[in-house]
Amino acid sequence: MITLDFSKSVDGLIPAIAQDYQTGEVLMLAYINNEAWQHSLNTGNATYWSRSRQKLWKKGESSGHVQKIKAIYVDCDLDTVVFKVEQIGGAACHKGYASCFYRRVEGDELVTIAEPVFDPEKVYKK
Amino acid sequence: MITLDFSKSVDGLIPAIAQDYQTGEVLMLAYINNEAWQHSLNTGNATYWSRSRQKLWKKGESSGHVQKIKAIYVDCDLDTVVFKVEQIGGAACHKGYASCFYRRVEGDELVTIAEPVFDPEKVYKK
Repeated sequence: MITLDFSKSVDGLIPAIAQDYQTGEVLMLAYINNEAWQHSLNTGNATYWSRSRQKLWKKGESSGHVQKIKAIYVDCDLDTVVFKVEQIGGAACHKGYASCFYRRVEGDELVTIAEPVFDPEKVYKK
Repeated sequence: MITLDFSKSVDGLIPAIAQDYQTGEVLMLAYINNEAWQHSLNTGNATYWSRSRQKLWKKGESSGHVQKIKAIYVDCDLDTVVFKVEQIGGAACHKGYASCFYRRVEGDELVTIAEPVFDPEKVYKK
């Protein structure tokens, strides 16, 4: 098991970047602790630690829109990882976009530069 | 000026992902506070906050190997940014590699999958 350095952040979490394994598009960034890291390695599905819910976040567990890990890269300091993933369902963002980075800075404005893949109202039923 | 949400992390920093604007390769991840964010916007060069030195980190300031910002993307929660950059000098990593993510997880090992662009011993003179 590869050991990462969770000691440098105040909360013991390190960032994990999910990147489309084919296009290279950065899809999202979330956080992992050692439990999420081991779960990702063991299952092959990207698993994070939810800061808001303070629990393991098996992304796509309910919707089926998991992120299948194709490769993992670790940085020089062992405190950030890149998951190269296949995003099942086509959208990583809870707002229905393929990528959470669907807005570009243009001057003093944020301009939406992508079309949503799904309607979050329909996918995340109340 | 675009206002980001620095409130969610314990230390008031949010991650900035530097990505090669042409190849899409993720080069590195560092952190920004509002000062680094504004400096990046105002100068067009990626500027971070050094957690180890606790000061503004104008990347490439001494070596000239700056990251020229070609575009900036902001995520759905306003708490992560992607800098699409041109990495002057060809290497973002202090270990001399183009990307800090020069190692891939293969089983229980980290395998180096890139060649260094420069020799850090020569660039970072003591």
